[in-house]
Amino acid sequence: MIVVMKPEAPAEEIDRLSAEFREMGLAPEKIVGKHKTVLGLVGETADMDALQLQDLSPWIEQVLRVEKPYKRVSKEYRHGEPSEIVVPTPNGPVVFSAFAPVVVVAGPCSVENEAMIVETARRVKAAGAKFLRGGAFKPRTSPYAFQGHGESALQLLQAAKDATGLGIITEVMDAADLEIICEVADVVQIGARNMHNFSLLKKVGAQDKPVLLKRGMSATIEEWLMAAEYILAAGNPNVILCERGIRTFDNQYARNTLDLSAIPVLKSLTHLPIMIDPSHGTGKSEYVPAMAAAAIAAGTDSLMIEVHPTPSKALSDGPQSLTPERFDRLMRELSVIGNAVNRWEAQPVPVLA
Amino acid sequence: MIVVMKPEAPAEEIDRLSAEFREMGLAPEKIVGKHKTVLGLVGETADMDALQLQDLSPWIEQVLRVEKPYKRVSKEYRHGEPSEIVVPTPNGPVVFSAFAPVVVVAGPCSVENEAMIVETARRVKAAGAKFLRGGAFKPRTSPYAFQGHGESALQLLQAAKDATGLGIITEVMDAADLEIICEVADVVQIGARNMHNFSLLKKVGAQDKPVLLKRGMSATIEEWLMAAEYILAAGNPNVILCERGIRTFDNQYARNTLDLSAIPVLKSLTHLPIMIDPSHGTGKSEYVPAMAAAAIAAGTDSLMIEVHPTPSKALSDGPQSLTPERFDRLMRELSVIGNAVNRWEAQPVPVLA
Amino acid sequence: MIVVMKPEAPAEEIDRLSAEFREMGLAPEKIVGKHKTVLGLVGETADMDALQLQDLSPWIEQVLRVEKPYKRVSKEYRHGEPSEIVVPTPNGPVVFSAFAPVVVVAGPCSVENEAMIVETARRVKAAGAKFLRGGAFKPRTSPYAFQGHGESALQLLQAAKDATGLGIITEVMDAADLEIICEVADVVQIGARNMHNFSLLKKVGAQDKPVLLKRGMSATIEEWLMAAEYILAAGNPNVILCERGIRTFDNQYARNTLDLSAIPVLKSLTHLPIMIDPSHGTGKSEYVPAMAAAAIAAGTDSLMIEVHPTPSKALSDGPQSLTPERFDRLMRELSVIGNAVNRWEAQPVPVLA
Amino acid sequence: MIVVMKPEAPAEEIDRLSAEFREMGLAPEKIVGKHKTVLGLVGETADMDALQLQDLSPWIEQVLRVEKPYKRVSKEYRHGEPSEIVVPTPNGPVVFSAFAPVVVVAGPCSVENEAMIVETARRVKAAGAKFLRGGAFKPRTSPYAFQGHGESALQLLQAAKDATGLGIITEVMDAADLEIICEVADVVQIGARNMHNFSLLKKVGAQDKPVLLKRGMSATIEEWLMAAEYILAAGNPNVILCERGIRTFDNQYARNTLDLSAIPVLKSLTHLPIMIDPSHGTGKSEYVPAMAAAAIAAGTDSLMIEVHPTPSKALSDGPQSLTPERFDRLMRELSVIGNAVNRWEAQPVPVLA
Repeated sequence: MIVVMKPEAPAEEIDRLSAEFREMGLAPEKIVGKHKTVLGLVGETADMDALQLQDLSPWIEQVLRVEKPYKRVSKEYRHGEPSEIVVPTPNGPVVFSAFAPVVVVAGPCSVENEAMIVETARRVKAAGAKFLRGGAFKPRTSPYAFQGHGESALQLLQAAKDATGLGIITEVMDAADLEIICEVADVVQIGARNMHNFSLLKKVGAQDKPVLLKRGMSATIEEWLMAAEYILAAGNPNVILCERGIRTFDNQYARNTLDLSAIPVLKSLTHLPIMIDPSHGTGKSEYVPAMAAAAIAAGTDSLMIEVHPTPSKALSDGPQSLTPERFDRLMRELSVIGNAVNRWEAQPVPVLA
Repeated sequence: MIVVMKPEAPAEEIDRLSAEFREMGLAPEKIVGKHKTVLGLVGETADMDALQLQDLSPWIEQVLRVEKPYKRVSKEYRHGEPSEIVVPTPNGPVVFSAFAPVVVVAGPCSVENEAMIVETARRVKAAGAKFLRGGAFKPRTSPYAFQGHGESALQLLQAAKDATGLGIITEVMDAADLEIICEVADVVQIGARNMHNFSLLKKVGAQDKPVLLKRGMSATIEEWLMAAEYILAAGNPNVILCERGIRTFDNQYARNTLDLSAIPVLKSLTHLPIMIDPSHGTGKSEYVPAMAAAAIAAGTDSLMIEVHPTPSKALSDGPQSLTPERFDRLMRELSVIGNAVNRWEAQPVPVLA
Repeated sequence: MIVVMKPEAPAEEIDRLSAEFREMGLAPEKIVGKHKTVLGLVGETADMDALQLQDLSPWIEQVLRVEKPYKRVSKEYRHGEPSEIVVPTPNGPVVFSAFAPVVVVAGPCSVENEAMIVETARRVKAAGAKFLRGGAFKPRTSPYAFQGHGESALQLLQAAKDATGLGIITEVMDAADLEIICEVADVVQIGARNMHNFSLLKKVGAQDKPVLLKRGMSATIEEWLMAAEYILAAGNPNVILCERGIRTFDNQYARNTLDLSAIPVLKSLTHLPIMIDPSHGTGKSEYVPAMAAAAIAAGTDSLMIEVHPTPSKALSDGPQSLTPERFDRLMRELSVIGNAVNRWEAQPVPVLA
Repeated sequence: MIVVMKPEAPAEEIDRLSAEFREMGLAPEKIVGKHKTVLGLVGETADMDALQLQDLSPWIEQVLRVEKPYKRVSKEYRHGEPSEIVVPTPNGPVVFSAFAPVVVVAGPCSVENEAMIVETARRVKAAGAKFLRGGAFKPRTSPYAFQGHGESALQLLQAAKDATGLGIITEVMDAADLEIICEVADVVQIGARNMHNFSLLKKVGAQDKPVLLKRGMSATIEEWLMAAEYILAAGNPNVILCERGIRTFDNQYARNTLDLSAIPVLKSLTHLPIMIDPSHGTGKSEYVPAMAAAAIAAGTDSLMIEVHPTPSKALSDGPQSLTPERFDRLMRELSVIGNAVNRWEAQPVPVLA
């Protein structure tokens, strides 16, 4: 920590403060500048809160953090080695890691009925997806909008899992549902709106299923890593970080701004694997293929893509989701980039499951 | 709802879609423009989701909402009459309303110990505050930071209430704590980070204590009103909306951007009373007085101000909170503006409680 | 400046860099922390560019600025004393300053014709405005939109000045027009879109008329002050800083977010006077009165308000501008707040000019 | 245009307004909804300004644009066919187009001296760049920072052009410098800070050299296209659109947020070619390779990359720019992605020029 004193700070206050830092176990080193005095604090400061330090004296102008505030999620915690998160699924273990092929997760926004979810699962599996996503409990801006079929939708996800062997990823919004969700889900999702729901983070951290942690819509990279730190600190080391678009001043064409620079930034800071969700990240299916390809080129470890079967509207792509046909084509397009960067698995023979 | 078709949309698709709207109970009126066709939907569309409508056809370019998506919180729901939220406290009922004097809520960020919270309560009461705020459960970015004293802090808040007769406002982060919080709190606070925690919103909506709903740090006014709609739809009509600064590109001096225009905007849209929190809204005590005065001039119904006793640092204002002395002076400064706009209560005689 | 080295930085590189800093006339003081080494640079660093310093070594993690990068605009430059900008007008000198009454500038967005601009000038003068604003050259997002009447509009502004004695404020977009604008204008405006047009800043800095510098729509406070520093560094000390709303994620109701916290922030940093423009700042006339009142309560030194005479639509307020009637009423409302804070001039007797 | 009337709008006002629209040559079609009346305006509305329309009546709630406000830059203007911008250089014509290989532009931020700029030009040419970038006139936040060597730097760029045959791209900040810049530059750059300098846009539109138009740091896609429309409307059809990072709430690691979704969005809206600048877009050289690869995968037509020779610091990459060595390696990395998507030119044999 670097403590910058106000220009007019009295010498005795700087001495008093230095003594207070020494009592806290820190070694303050004083630099007397032309206009200001600065105290460099040597010692274990990672846990300290810059705002709380600032409260120690009204003569402090600002406190600058030099150390990172997170530990377990940091690259240094694993000595630079990326994590490997191995998720067992009926079709065999799937690995999320910088060393493994890009894992593709696909499926509809919400689980609507058995025929729909089983059919979607079959189609996305045939195209190469390893996980089925589908919402049972849905966060909706309006209390009057469809909130998901809840518990019964979990049974439909189980049916789709039984039919295809795909792993299941679904969102938990309420800790009270965590147990029944974990009976079906192979990976539990924390949605963007709950990234700062610290109670829920602690609870998913205290259970065993891997956690997909979506970035809050205006969360900084550091806040997102601190949210992951909550989960790791509670005992669960298996967190996948999913970028899904941030909120900016422009939402006229793309609904959010997909922050692909999060990929190299995260790779420089953390050992955790990364997922990119271009469907929520752009909000329009026509932008999804370009962004999915870009994510692979930038080094993502996995992708989450919305696919919805709407046979009556099979003329072209739907606005929010890809049709199974378009998804199938996309996977072939992505294989070109994926193979070029050696992050693509040999395609399964497309047999109808 | 206005449905704008893509320029190349085939006539038969527009007909098919019109039929589908009629089946949904809506009367579509077609306007054929030079380049595009537009369908105006007449009927009950307030509950409908623009994104779901867009899924009805790939030939839809965009769906524009003309009606507001909220009902119970809207000004029209009460025929233009502002709500009056009457909160019983030991010192008597306190009214949050456009017709009542500005209600001032004050106190420390967290409850630290009995002496500190009781002393703060006495001081803020003497200066004219009607409610004591203080965190028992604290949302903290870092899992390693102090998370509040929890249940024991609630007892200290009760002690401060017993000593002063002030009402108590404190935050709930986990539905599991709601019952014990409500034993002490007169108003339950939902923090900015949980504004989109829909499970929690439903639960505070299903109990009786009034709810203070802070705006999420990147929530639009409409999303914030929809969060309040969740609480009203669950049965609780007593919601106070608290602006506490939004996240923007500039956080170098003020930590957030306090959006005071929310005051006239909300007054044009909703009957619910408004609170402004200039302490979190700016993040620096030296900016608090100007913003508190501005909020009253703009028409706020209440204010939340952080006050912390730090006797050893009484030389000047602390960086995050006001000292009791500075708060006392601020209340006298605010009375000038408050009296000018006829929103200030006659000061109580400052007797030590 | 504080130079934070990467954890793995070799000792010899830190020594080499220290030598390089000494050659630059700086005294580097080394603090060896648990994980990182930090160099505090003592000396004249205000002119230095943090990014250029960072280029000195690949082992530098970050460079933190401790000194402010501006000088002439800083409060310290005038030893804490606010500037007084005295602008001569036919009606006598008008003072923009923290010690003077709030100066109100009013008028239409664009100058349309002589009758309209003279009539508006008479009405706003009668209500208490000291300056007429009106665009001759208009920055317009579309090349096909009305770009202002240009030079001929300047003559109309002169006619309004002759008729009322009000001072004139109008915008310069092109240095080539500066001379003819200065023949009429008493204050030259730099619009938000040109705040970063450094060539134009240097040119208005090299002439004598006071400059109204609007904040760029996504400019930080520091960038805004640096833009003012360009003008002062070029020789013109008379700059008024005008906040007109910043761009954020929410523009559904208010078109911009009026950042009123800029008032206390600027007062803590600079001696220059402050103006608030609630008309552009909110984009809707119905929000203007609350924000104008708030600005006065927060300590603004002047206000800019759009007023447009639309007699055929006198039923109610127009959406972008106030009618002269509403402006007249607003001035009476503002006098209540203005008088309460001792920043309002005794109203002139409202005689029709 | 869709005009939404306020719920309480009187019938006679709607009739009066309809008559006014008919006088403007528009055919208003009235839709009477449950709560509100809506007028659909049929006719030529692309030039109209929604805000000006709103001024026609105080009973208008909002005006929604259905048509795009730009014409010449729109995809429809060229019937869906992308532009080809052919730039003559000493080494032969270079084509910016969706059908051509990705054009790489490289070079230092500023031109420092002849040896440095000629050496950089040789190195980037050898690695496959077609254009040299280098600032002669530099937009700097501080008036005290180095502002570029100006006219003499143009001669150094000419020397680098003579030595290597590369095309030259350099920025114009002041219309007064346009002529001398165009004697050397093959493409004239408008920087992000001047994207809304409409006077300058008109002037670069009135000359013949192709224009590189950087996106303003908080410009929406639509505003950016409108800025390009200014140039096309002034007569110059050769505009390249360069995304260079937008300003968001998070600038801790990446200095800006590189908006790669601009690529598919622009491809759906305009025929103009696209450039991506990952160096300014992220602000850190270590993030540049991932973002450059992503840009190619997403479909960019060209790339702008900062390269600076700092032989004394050749240990690793510099913080803002790539070393020539790192750039050389990057070009080989990019060729993998570029070849996979058939957008890469066969590498020239790397002979020292």
